[in-house]
Amino acid sequence: MTEETEALRKHYEWNGKIEVGSRVKLETKADLALAYTPGVADACMKIADDPNEAYQLTRKNNLVGVITNGTAVLGLGNIGPQASMPVMEGKCILFKKFADIDGFPITIEATEVDEVVRTIKQIAGSFGAINLEDIAAPECFEIERRLIEELDIPVFHDDQHGTAIVVGAGVINALRLQKKEIADVKIVVNGAGAAGISIAKHLTHLGAKHIDLVDRNGIIHSGYPGITDEQKRVLAITNLTNREGTLQDALTDADIFVGVSAPNILTVDDIRLMKKSPIVFAMANPNPEILPDVAKEAGVAIMGTGRSDFPNQINNVSAFPGIFRGALDANATTINVEMRTAVSYAIAGLVEDSELTEKYIIPDPLDERVVPAVAKAVTEAAIETDVIRKN
Amino acid sequence: MTEETEALRKHYEWNGKIEVGSRVKLETKADLALAYTPGVADACMKIADDPNEAYQLTRKNNLVGVITNGTAVLGLGNIGPQASMPVMEGKCILFKKFADIDGFPITIEATEVDEVVRTIKQIAGSFGAINLEDIAAPECFEIERRLIEELDIPVFHDDQHGTAIVVGAGVINALRLQKKEIADVKIVVNGAGAAGISIAKHLTHLGAKHIDLVDRNGIIHSGYPGITDEQKRVLAITNLTNREGTLQDALTDADIFVGVSAPNILTVDDIRLMKKSPIVFAMANPNPEILPDVAKEAGVAIMGTGRSDFPNQINNVSAFPGIFRGALDANATTINVEMRTAVSYAIAGLVEDSELTEKYIIPDPLDERVVPAVAKAVTEAAIETDVIRKN
Repeated sequence: MTEETEALRKHYEWNGKIEVGSRVKLETKADLALAYTPGVADACMKIADDPNEAYQLTRKNNLVGVITNGTAVLGLGNIGPQASMPVMEGKCILFKKFADIDGFPITIEATEVDEVVRTIKQIAGSFGAINLEDIAAPECFEIERRLIEELDIPVFHDDQHGTAIVVGAGVINALRLQKKEIADVKIVVNGAGAAGISIAKHLTHLGAKHIDLVDRNGIIHSGYPGITDEQKRVLAITNLTNREGTLQDALTDADIFVGVSAPNILTVDDIRLMKKSPIVFAMANPNPEILPDVAKEAGVAIMGTGRSDFPNQINNVSAFPGIFRGALDANATTINVEMRTAVSYAIAGLVEDSELTEKYIIPDPLDERVVPAVAKAVTEAAIETDVIRKN
Repeated sequence: MTEETEALRKHYEWNGKIEVGSRVKLETKADLALAYTPGVADACMKIADDPNEAYQLTRKNNLVGVITNGTAVLGLGNIGPQASMPVMEGKCILFKKFADIDGFPITIEATEVDEVVRTIKQIAGSFGAINLEDIAAPECFEIERRLIEELDIPVFHDDQHGTAIVVGAGVINALRLQKKEIADVKIVVNGAGAAGISIAKHLTHLGAKHIDLVDRNGIIHSGYPGITDEQKRVLAITNLTNREGTLQDALTDADIFVGVSAPNILTVDDIRLMKKSPIVFAMANPNPEILPDVAKEAGVAIMGTGRSDFPNQINNVSAFPGIFRGALDANATTINVEMRTAVSYAIAGLVEDSELTEKYIIPDPLDERVVPAVAKAVTEAAIETDVIRKN
């Protein structure tokens, strides 16, 4: 039996991975009178008088809506809302396991930006925060942007930021090990979809100044065939000389390769174009852009992948549970750039100088120190940037 | 400390009445690989191939969305979505307690029919069934009608049908005790909002032929001031001679009074206009249309209220948990008239001939036989009317 069929068998056995429980003892009519009618009316009227009371009197303080339209599910593509639900339920139980957050999965039918935004705004009051999940680019960018603007609760598209934040932590520590400054190094991000664009943006927030974003047809520049609005926008921070070129052109003398593209795209010859002792994050799933042993042979000094069976696993589970934990605990009204960069530093900071090696630049995603450290960084940045809900 | 402030204190202590739990053990990376990536992809693809698999591979089989816009919350009126949430959470824990159903509360902002329907259709795929709650009349009628028509999962507006179904059970047993036929008796329903209209309809489905629906300005007839579309529609089954008149005109020689109106609206003199040994269901909350001791003195033979501290409590908790349990278990695609009438008979049938007295025409809402009996009736009616999802 392969791992996959075992997983399917388990899914049939679980018959759903989430459940809704009661935090209240309901045994007697007196219990019912307190939790439901008539007692509940008092809680309702308190909230009617002051909406902030909802955070005390309902589960809004700990509820995250995990919302998708199923247009970009894992590596499976646009499989639709219904088929995406096992992933959403999985995400919800990760929220529970890692950060004791009540995540609830909502799938929506719409694919057009306006209708997705409208639907989420209609139901947003049900939640304390919203985790957008597996929504295709380029729609995901505008959907997140508008929801952040129009809602007063935190909204976070994990596929954009989650991986970017953890890559950021990896880059911080890889450069710490090599005693290089991020502003000085040349970085190639391969894959110019949601993840790649977000990684480029996030590395810029961390101080990177020389980034090339590359896709199937080479380096993204203003004349790139079929360039999207979002790719155009990112030209303000990548490929500042607006040159054309292949992946190989971009790689020449680069310090860092970050791949969110496809298996085996990076060859030994490609690596040899890069600076000495390059850093490679090869995160195509499940098969990376280059395998660690091949990369090592070609001279790669530090390597991370998305996989748990190689060193330096870049996994968004290091980020999103603590981010939402911190945002909810801080009564934050948004999750902003400052919070996201603080998280990269917080994750990187968990690796002590004495521990830092080429095989250990990132704490294990299951390391129990990660969530509290991330949450603390988010809370502090929320206070510092003054995005705390006023009571 | 009054019961109300105790309830409020408890709500602060609970800090939300629901929570989302995991049905899956997540301890090791192997666990993660089964429940999340990469294993979860198999479950997704199964559903992509056959949407019905969602009932096996996700929690859709047991998830009920408890959805409101907060326009008619308890007796509090239009307090808005946020303030209605304590009631929705309360409803969800009743679902859990009585029928082991995972109810999840969703509040929506819209009040107009089109936008409410559109929003619910967008998110309906997240659930196995939908319980509409505390939505004002007349919008609630069209919202429910359209959702039933346009969705392939059960949709049930409890405020319309829940009380009506339990009143129906009470009427069945009161008449059984008095050895009268429902087709022969004259029934006055006071209160022509959602509940009253639904009660009139439901009693008609149970065989009633002589019903007057009454509101503030007397008997509903075609020239009733400000008559709503829904009230017009119900004229096909009530007040068949289309006469004008007061509540007192309606009560003259009536066998049964059903009140979903306001406290103390029914006087001793009113009762004396009715037939000998009349039946009264006085369900205004928390203070009924007439108090049982006053009613008894005036000659009322059988009396029910919404309250747990008087005999014959008419409580929708006798109906909705078992109805959804049965609909989910039967893989029903809707909850139809036949299912709803079957439930009235099932609840009534739990009272044996030997037990049936004026003080005991309805089983206690906490009676553990109620949910299984109701669920069974629903399942059987679903099979009989062939509204089972095809696999």
